[in-house]
Parts: sequence; structure tokens; C-alpha cells
Amino acid sequence: MGSDSDLAVMSKAAAQLEEFGIDYEMTIISAHREADVLMDWAAKAPERGVKVIIAGAGMAAALPGMCAALFPLPVIGVPLSGKNLDGMDAVFSILQMPPGVPVATVAIDGAKNAAILAAKMLAMSDEGILDKLNAYTAGMKEQVQKKAEKLERVGYREYLASK
Amino acid sequence: MGSDSDLAVMSKAAAQLEEFGIDYEMTIISAHREADVLMDWAAKAPERGVKVIIAGAGMAAALPGMCAALFPLPVIGVPLSGKNLDGMDAVFSILQMPPGVPVATVAIDGAKNAAILAAKMLAMSDEGILDKLNAYTAGMKEQVQKKAEKLERVGYREYLASK
Amino acid sequence: MGSDSDLAVMSKAAAQLEEFGIDYEMTIISAHREADVLMDWAAKAPERGVKVIIAGAGMAAALPGMCAALFPLPVIGVPLSGKNLDGMDAVFSILQMPPGVPVATVAIDGAKNAAILAAKMLAMSDEGILDKLNAYTAGMKEQVQKKAEKLERVGYREYLASK
Amino acid sequence: MGSDSDLAVMSKAAAQLEEFGIDYEMTIISAHREADVLMDWAAKAPERGVKVIIAGAGMAAALPGMCAALFPLPVIGVPLSGKNLDGMDAVFSILQMPPGVPVATVAIDGAKNAAILAAKMLAMSDEGILDKLNAYTAGMKEQVQKKAEKLERVGYREYLASK
Amino acid sequence: MGSDSDLAVMSKAAAQLEEFGIDYEMTIISAHREADVLMDWAAKAPERGVKVIIAGAGMAAALPGMCAALFPLPVIGVPLSGKNLDGMDAVFSILQMPPGVPVATVAIDGAKNAAILAAKMLAMSDEGILDKLNAYTAGMKEQVQKKAEKLERVGYREYLASK
Amino acid sequence: MGSDSDLAVMSKAAAQLEEFGIDYEMTIISAHREADVLMDWAAKAPERGVKVIIAGAGMAAALPGMCAALFPLPVIGVPLSGKNLDGMDAVFSILQMPPGVPVATVAIDGAKNAAILAAKMLAMSDEGILDKLNAYTAGMKEQVQKKAEKLERVGYREYLASK
Amino acid sequence: MGSDSDLAVMSKAAAQLEEFGIDYEMTIISAHREADVLMDWAAKAPERGVKVIIAGAGMAAALPGMCAALFPLPVIGVPLSGKNLDGMDAVFSILQMPPGVPVATVAIDGAKNAAILAAKMLAMSDEGILDKLNAYTAGMKEQVQKKAEKLERVGYREYLASK
Amino acid sequence: MGSDSDLAVMSKAAAQLEEFGIDYEMTIISAHREADVLMDWAAKAPERGVKVIIAGAGMAAALPGMCAALFPLPVIGVPLSGKNLDGMDAVFSILQMPPGVPVATVAIDGAKNAAILAAKMLAMSDEGILDKLNAYTAGMKEQVQKKAEKLERVGYREYLASK
Repeated sequence: MGSDSDLAVMSKAAAQLEEFGIDYEMTIISAHREADVLMDWAAKAPERGVKVIIAGAGMAAALPGMCAALFPLPVIGVPLSGKNLDGMDAVFSILQMPPGVPVATVAIDGAKNAAILAAKMLAMSDEGILDKLNAYTAGMKEQVQKKAEKLERVGYREYLASK
Repeated sequence: MGSDSDLAVMSKAAAQLEEFGIDYEMTIISAHREADVLMDWAAKAPERGVKVIIAGAGMAAALPGMCAALFPLPVIGVPLSGKNLDGMDAVFSILQMPPGVPVATVAIDGAKNAAILAAKMLAMSDEGILDKLNAYTAGMKEQVQKKAEKLERVGYREYLASK
Repeated sequence: MGSDSDLAVMSKAAAQLEEFGIDYEMTIISAHREADVLMDWAAKAPERGVKVIIAGAGMAAALPGMCAALFPLPVIGVPLSGKNLDGMDAVFSILQMPPGVPVATVAIDGAKNAAILAAKMLAMSDEGILDKLNAYTAGMKEQVQKKAEKLERVGYREYLASK
Repeated sequence: MGSDSDLAVMSKAAAQLEEFGIDYEMTIISAHREADVLMDWAAKAPERGVKVIIAGAGMAAALPGMCAALFPLPVIGVPLSGKNLDGMDAVFSILQMPPGVPVATVAIDGAKNAAILAAKMLAMSDEGILDKLNAYTAGMKEQVQKKAEKLERVGYREYLASK
Repeated sequence: MGSDSDLAVMSKAAAQLEEFGIDYEMTIISAHREADVLMDWAAKAPERGVKVIIAGAGMAAALPGMCAALFPLPVIGVPLSGKNLDGMDAVFSILQMPPGVPVATVAIDGAKNAAILAAKMLAMSDEGILDKLNAYTAGMKEQVQKKAEKLERVGYREYLASK
Repeated sequence: MGSDSDLAVMSKAAAQLEEFGIDYEMTIISAHREADVLMDWAAKAPERGVKVIIAGAGMAAALPGMCAALFPLPVIGVPLSGKNLDGMDAVFSILQMPPGVPVATVAIDGAKNAAILAAKMLAMSDEGILDKLNAYTAGMKEQVQKKAEKLERVGYREYLASK
Repeated sequence: MGSDSDLAVMSKAAAQLEEFGIDYEMTIISAHREADVLMDWAAKAPERGVKVIIAGAGMAAALPGMCAALFPLPVIGVPLSGKNLDGMDAVFSILQMPPGVPVATVAIDGAKNAAILAAKMLAMSDEGILDKLNAYTAGMKEQVQKKAEKLERVGYREYLASK
Repeated sequence: MGSDSDLAVMSKAAAQLEEFGIDYEMTIISAHREADVLMDWAAKAPERGVKVIIAGAGMAAALPGMCAALFPLPVIGVPLSGKNLDGMDAVFSILQMPPGVPVATVAIDGAKNAAILAAKMLAMSDEGILDKLNAYTAGMKEQVQKKAEKLERVGYREYLASK
């Protein structure tokens, strides 16, 4: 991520990766404040065995795109909302990459989804992760169904009161 | 893709995959006009050996998200511009997926980048594709450098006249 | 609705239907987390006597459109606001349906209006509901007139103080 | 509709209603230029047996909302795009109705969908129209499947060349 | 104004008119909930000696435009912000009037400016009001100059601390 | 107006004033290129008998606001669309005036409405202009009614063909 | 700045200039409330040795553009966010200057960056300021690196807890 | 600039610099396609005597911000419009820089203004350029005045006809 003010949101990606048992390294690198560190870090990432980069940034969010410029494997970009504009500045800065240098962009503040997307990419060649993803998806479905059953059983007034 | 009116843009993804020598199947499935076909197609995609889905759609673009709901591996979404709104309706419909079901969104009309992103995902476990990506990236760089050299040599007036 | 986080808003639709004495069923189905449940639920809705579906969802709100794809009678979509974007992502995802598959979209967070619109649809062939709607409309008018009379009587300073 | 400049788009609603064999009256009434005519026309619409109003308007599109204020049964609003703003001014003017007075809003320039939505409302109590809607939906699905088959058979290059 | 929820903002217009010694009547009329009351009120406004109407409304704000349709003299529209969209829905509904029926639109929540604009219109033929406006303008200038002098004298730290 | 590129649109204001028989002066003054000329022109406008200023400008449209800063009577602002942004930059620059200095803003490219609004302001103390406005309004209504009659008589196919 | 309500943000520019040891004068001038004062102040700024103007304003922010119209050297504009619109009204009013009269616009509420940009301009001919800027840049880099080291050392859970 | 597709717009900056007699180098460097070239070029720019960088880019425009990260003196960013979004993606990517790394942003497609802004920065310590700027400003004023005189002399009909 580009700043430690992004950590509260981006930590959700780490937590999700941990839940899937996927190794990760997590650091803060600012594209605009230490471009040389970014160059070096991204160029050496393949040697360290990095398969996917998740880059979260707000405002004029250059970090994901610069990672995509430097790293040959997929980069997932998380546009972060800030004080103004609800993250639309970051969406445009991350999504609208020129031909040849894609960033896989997820929802505004969607750090958790970035981790799940990374897991899906790894699952393309890792059955173990695929199994975990399928279990995760089944769990989500079960949760929604339980809530639906509760709502149908108790009605919306009691449901709202019990939340 | 969701309609044959999307083909002119989405064919750029196919052309790029061909350039990388990556097998693909290409079809038209409308999430809103044949939901059962989509359910069946997406559910059976893993059996057919599909590793990534690239889904392009415009307006209230449900196709990429529904693919992500049904297919366990990565889905790449291409928001397509239409008569109005410059594709922003499709951006919001594809990007803003709820927690648990990510779509890897690329730029508006960014079909070519969708193919490159798919190649990057495959390259995570395929050195041959990685080599092709690296060659592609080197080629892009060379092209820009040639243009820069020409511009510096002939000046902008002649460059513009010769375009 | 797509999630129980939508319940606080969507319960206003239920309350309004109750006020009109219109039977309804209320449940939580996530288009992206349990597509098969949605397929089944929407396909069997006509058999259960469902005449209108009111579908509320936020972000990349696929639920209303997928209901419209699966259910032959009217679907009313309620775009829900969330943490970012004031519900504009949901507006575009619900409103901009392709030709052939309309969703009757109401205002952002407009669950109450969704219920009134459903009642208007039912009133097309049910004089009892039409009478209730006309009474409701007359009641609204009376309320505004009472407020106007009070404002004209006490002036804006006292009116504001008494609120 | 509010102006004869809207006719090219709004005539698609008429054509679709004709295809379904649904009777309609079509006229031009400007909310801002002949408010009294609108009052009278909308108030007397129920007597003439009007079940649904489809109101298309652009810019500060008051027509659909004023119809909804005056007519007790459903009003469908079609936001029309103009020279500037891609119809977003009309979307906000039609969609964002206050509690109590809903307008069933469809996509920008979505006159065809307005007619289909009207047919769905009528089909709530008319099996004949429901049958026609189901046939229409089946036809759409068949069309997409034919296109998909052609694309899979001839490939995207020949498909694009033959369009 | 269209609702008593608009009163907190719209009362600033009344207060400003009082400051200028300009007579006004203030009421609540909802274009969408009591169209007939509006028709009657606006049509009879000239007889009551009304020279300008200030109409404030939020969301799909039809009130100012309908006043302009019914009242031959100037209508000033105040777009009001609500829970979502920061008043942009009201801006488009009030500003984008079709040719022939203008509304003099002021800033979002700009009720005070609406009153000053009304005073300027009256001042076109009333020297007394013009004098008051000129005094008001001079007062504003003096206020800014006093603040500037204080800031230059005490510095920004003390200025901020003393606020 | 701020530039002669605005003349094609702004001339519609002049034509409309001529139709009403209202005297006007028309000139080009750029707030950003000749601020001193603007200061002088606006300050002396009252002496020349100017009752209303209509100021049209595009992009960062300072002209209407600066006129309102310098001229004590009403200023009507016309936001003009340009190559990008559909005139939204000008809308914000003209509409969002701070408390104390209102600009009566009309629709994007709404020069004709600016003239009609100016006429309405003059009609507050000039019965002759009021009569012309009422005749103009009646004429608009008649025109719409003729179009409606024609549409009802010939049907939309012939109407469209004859346009 | 245009109002003392802008002082909390704009004081960050002053603080940054002080940190760089750059002399500045700070005042409040409203383009719309005291145009003559602005004319005089900006015209005499070169005589007082002013090299750059930093102008912060919100809403229809005419101040930066008018400074650019009157002052021959660079003007830096700071769009300020307000109650509505997140500062986008000010962005458009400041950024979209017509050809010939540029304003160097910085981020919304970016007063600190305005000061750094001013320092960069001065550093073009002042090695001492350049040294300070380089030290500042090195300091920022060091800060990010320290945070990155801490995050890598303690992990995100402890980091978040310690913030 | 980031691509030779930007040359038609960016050449206006070069032409303006030539008019002022200011030396410049012009090249094409893509932040996303040749990050190492950019790093090297920007780092060595001070040695080559570069005082200001003008960087034009479209879409997710990282070039201006990365120049600002690498180059200690001012960077002027020109957001370029493309096929979609009217350049708003580039505006957000260039304008919304984080604290510490400003980019002096000019209008969408405002290459000419970028050159004038660069000249103003140079004029801070170069009287010759200041004189040229003052002459340029005087020339602009004269041009507008000539147009105003012509318009006042011939009227808008003849003026429009003669354009």
C-alpha cells in the first residue's frame, strides 16, 4: 500500500489471505515518495517468488499502475476512498490503464475482494486453494440462507430489533 | 460477451490471445436474456478446462458479476461504452462487486488489456506465456522509443505531417 | 433484498404494503452468492402467485436485473446507497437494463415508493387497492396542507422551534 | 411525450405496444408549456380506460412526475438524452421522486423497455399479454443463441465482416 | 417550498427579505402531492401582487419549474441537498428547463442568495431596495476587510485559535 | 459574452430580446483577458440604463460572477458547453456563487431562456412586456397543441416521415 | 484566500512556507465581494516583490482565475471542499481556465502542496530553496521507509493497535 | 508526453514556447511502458538544465505524477481527453496528488496554457520572458477588444455570417 493510512482497509486483504493459508508479504511503498524503492522492490518481486501484487492506493493512485509497469505477473488494484470524492479519483487512476499494461481493479475499498481474486488466480494451478475457495463460497451461501430463514421466521421487525 | 454489438471491441481480446498462442472459446451469452444458458455454460466451464473468463458487457452489465458468481476461477470484466454515459454505467455494474465475489475490472473498452491480464494470470504457472509477455512488454517499450527517436529527429511539425 | 444490511431500508416497503393490506413474502437472496437459489426462487414465483417483485440492492446491484430476466411480470428495483458513491453505482446497475428486460427503477433508498408503485400496478385490476391508494394520496395532500396552514399561522421561527 | 423532438425515440414504445397488440393513445403534452392541458388530460385518463402512462421527457423532465402526481395508476418514465449531459439531467428529474409519488423509471432512451414494462403490468391480470411476453422473451433468447452459434461457427473475423 | 423538511434552509430567504424590508408570503406546496393547489396558488399569485416566486425543492424538484410554467413573472429556484447526491438531482431538475420556461437557479441550498436575487429584481424599479442592496454589498465588503485586517494583524495561528 | 466563439449560442438571446422589442447592447468582454475593461463596463452599466446583464461563458466561467460582483441589479448567467464536459464546468462556475452575490443561472446553452428571464424581470414593472410574455407563452402552448393534433391525426409513422 | 472559513485549510500552506523559510503575506480577499480591492492588490503585488500567488477558494471559485488575469507571474489555485460536492465545483472553476490565462491547480484542499509547488517555482532560481526541497523529499522518503520497516517488523495487527 | 497520439494537442505547448523564444526538448516517454527510461530521463533532467517539465497524458495518467516524484523542480500536468470520459480520468490522475508531491495541473487539453504557465515560472527570474508575457497578455486583450468593436459595429448577424 502507498501509506499507513491505508492500513485499516488493506489489512482486510491480509486477513483474508491468512484465512486461505496463502503466504504474503505486506509493506508500505509510496510511488510518489520513493520511486526508486518501488522500482527495486517490484523488479525483484519475481525472484522472491511473488506471484501476484495487491496494490491499494487513494487519490491519484499511481502505485498499482507502476507495479503493473514493473512486474510481469498480475497486479490487483484497490481504489481507496479518502476525505473527498468517495474514491472516484483512485478508481480512474487505477482502472483506466493504457493498452498493454492492465491492472485488475476491484471495488472501492475492496481489499477483501482483492485477496479473494488473488486466491482465484493462484487456484488456477493449485487445487488446494481452489478447494478453500469453494468452501468459502459455500459458506457465504449458507450464511445468506441462514439469514433468509431467520428473516422469514421472525419477520423484519424482530430481525431489525435483534441486530 | 453479452451481445454481438460488443464484438468489434471484444474481438481485440481474441486477437491478443491468438498473438500469445493462448487457446480460447468465444461466444455470446446474455445474462438478462438467457440466464439458464449462462448458468449452465459457466458451471461447466471448469470441466472444459477454462481457466479464466473474460466477460465484456455494457450498460447494466450483469454478465461479468454473474460469471464470477458461478465460476470459481478468475473473471475479468470489460466495461463497454455505449450511446450514452461513456461506459460509466458498465464500470459501476462491474467494478462495485460485493465482498466475496470479485471481478477483475479493466479499462472502459479495454478488451486488449483483458487478454493481457488473462495471459498474466496464466503466466503465474506457465513460463512459456511469461516469456511471451516479457517479449510483448519489450516490444512495446521499443516501439515507444522508436517514436521518441523519430520525434526528436524530425520535430513535431514533420512528425504530425507524416502521421 | 440482496443482504440483511439492506433490511433497515427495505422494511419500509414491507410496512407500506402492510398499510395497504397487500400480502407479501420477504426474503434475502444474493444474486452473486447463491445464483441457483435465485434462479429457483424467481422461476417458481409465478406459481406461488407472486404478481410483482420488489428487489433492493446496492453497489453492482445485479439482483433486480436478474429477477427481471427470470420473472415474467414486473420487477421494481430499489438502488441502495452504501458507504461510497451515494447509491449511483446501484442506480446505473439497475436502471440501465438492455432492451427487452426492463426494471422499474425508483429513487435511491426509495423502498416506500417501491411498495406504492407495486400497489399501483395491482390497482390496475383491483378497485380495493385503488381506493386505498386514493385515500393515501388524499392523506398526503391533507398533511402538506396542515403543515402549510401551521407555517402560515405561526411563522417560520416558531415552526422551526417546535419541530 | 413532452415535445415532438422526442418522437423518434418514443415511437419505439408505440411500435412495441403494437407488436403486443396493446391499445394505446399517443400525444404530445408539455408539462411546462401547457400545465392546464396536462392536468386535464391526466385527470381524465382513468375515465378513458388508461391503465398505464408512459411519459418520455428530457432535461428538467417534469412530465413523468407530474403525471404520477395526477394519475392514480402506474406511470413509467423514460429519461431522454439531449445535446448535453447524456440524459443524466432527465434521469435525476424522473428517478428521484419524493416518497408517495413513484415513477417507474427505465433506461436512458429506453422507450422500448417502457412498452415492455407496461405490457408486464397489464400481464398481471391478462394471460393473453403474458403469453405474448413469454413468446417475446423466448424469441430474444433464440436470437442470441443463433448469433452465438454463428459466431462459434464462422469465427469473429468473418462475423464482423458479414455485419 | 415543497416540504417542511426544507424549512431550515428556506427560512434564510425569509430572514434576508425581512432584513431588506420586503414583504413576502411563505408556504408549503408540494408539486407532486397537491398539483391542483399549486395550479391555483400560482395562477392567483399575480392578483395577490406577487412579483417574484422563490421555490426551493430537493430531489426530482418539479416545484420551481411548475411555478415557472404557471406564473408569468420570474421564478427563482433553490436546489436543496438531501441524504444522497449533494443536491445534484435538484440542480438538474431545476436548472435544465426547456426553451421558453426559464427558472433563475441559484446555488445548492442557496436560499439567502435567492432572496438577494429577488431583491435585485425588485430594485430594477425600486430605488429604496437598490439603496438597501448597495448598503448590504458595502457591509459585506467591510466585513471581509475587517477579517483581512485582523488576520494580517494577529497572524493565522491566533486567528484560528480565536474563532 | 466572454469570447466570440460564444456568439452562435448567445445570439439567440439577442434574437429573443428583439422579438420582445427590448433594447439591448451586446459585446464581448473577457473577465480573464481584460479585467479592467470588465470593471469599467460593469460599473458604468447602471448609468447607461442597463437593468439586467446576461453573461454567457464556458469552462471556468468567471464572467457572470464578476458581473454580479460589480453590478447591483440582476445578472443572468448562461453556462456554455465546449469541447469537453458538456458545460458542467461552466455550470459549477456560474451556479455555485457564495452568499451575497447571486447569479440567476439558466440551462446549459440556454441563451434564449436567459432573454425570456430578463423579459420576466422587466415585466415586473412593465405591463407591455408582460403582455408580450403572455402572448409568447400562449403561442408556445398553441404550437405544442398543433403538433399534438397532427400526431394524433396522422400517427407517428407519417409524422416522423414528414419531419 | 476568499473567506476566513478557508483559513483552517489554507494555513497549512503558510506553515509549509515557514518550514522552508520562505517569506509570504497572507490575506483574505473576496473576488466577488470586493473586486476593486482584488484588482488593486493583485496589480500592486509585483511592486511588493510577490513572485507567486497561492489562491484558495471554494464553490464558484473565481479568485485564482482573477488573480491569474491580473498578476503576470504564476498563480497556484487550491480548490476547497465545502458542504456539498466535495470541492468539484471549485475544481472546475479553477482548473478549466481559457487559453492564455493558466492557473496551476493542485488537489482539493491541497494547501500544503500549493506551498511546495511555490517553493519548487522559487527553487528554479534559488539553490537554497532547492536544497531545502531535496531535504524535505528525502525526509518524506525516510518516514515512509520507517513505517514500512515497522509494519514488516510488528505486523499489521500490532501496527493498527499502536496507531 | 506519454504517447504519440498526444502529439496533436501537446504540440501547441511547443509552438507557444517557440513564440516566447524559450528552449525546450520534446520527447515521448511512457510511464507504464518504460518506467526505467522515465526514471533515468527525469533524474538527469536537472543536469541538462531543465527548469520545468510539462507532462501531458490521458486516462490513468501517471506520467506527470511520476515526473513530480523524480524531478525536484516544477512539473506541469496536462490532462488529455480520449475516446471516453472527456479527460476526467486524466484530471483525477494528475490533480489529486498526495501531500508532498504537487503537480501544477492545467485545463483538459490545455497544452498551450501549460507553456504559458512554464513561461510565467521562468519569468520569476527572467525579465525578458516577463516582457514577452506582458506583451502576449496585451495582445490577447487587444484581440478581444477588436472583436468587441467589430461586433458592436456590424451586429451579431453580420458577424456570424462573416466568421
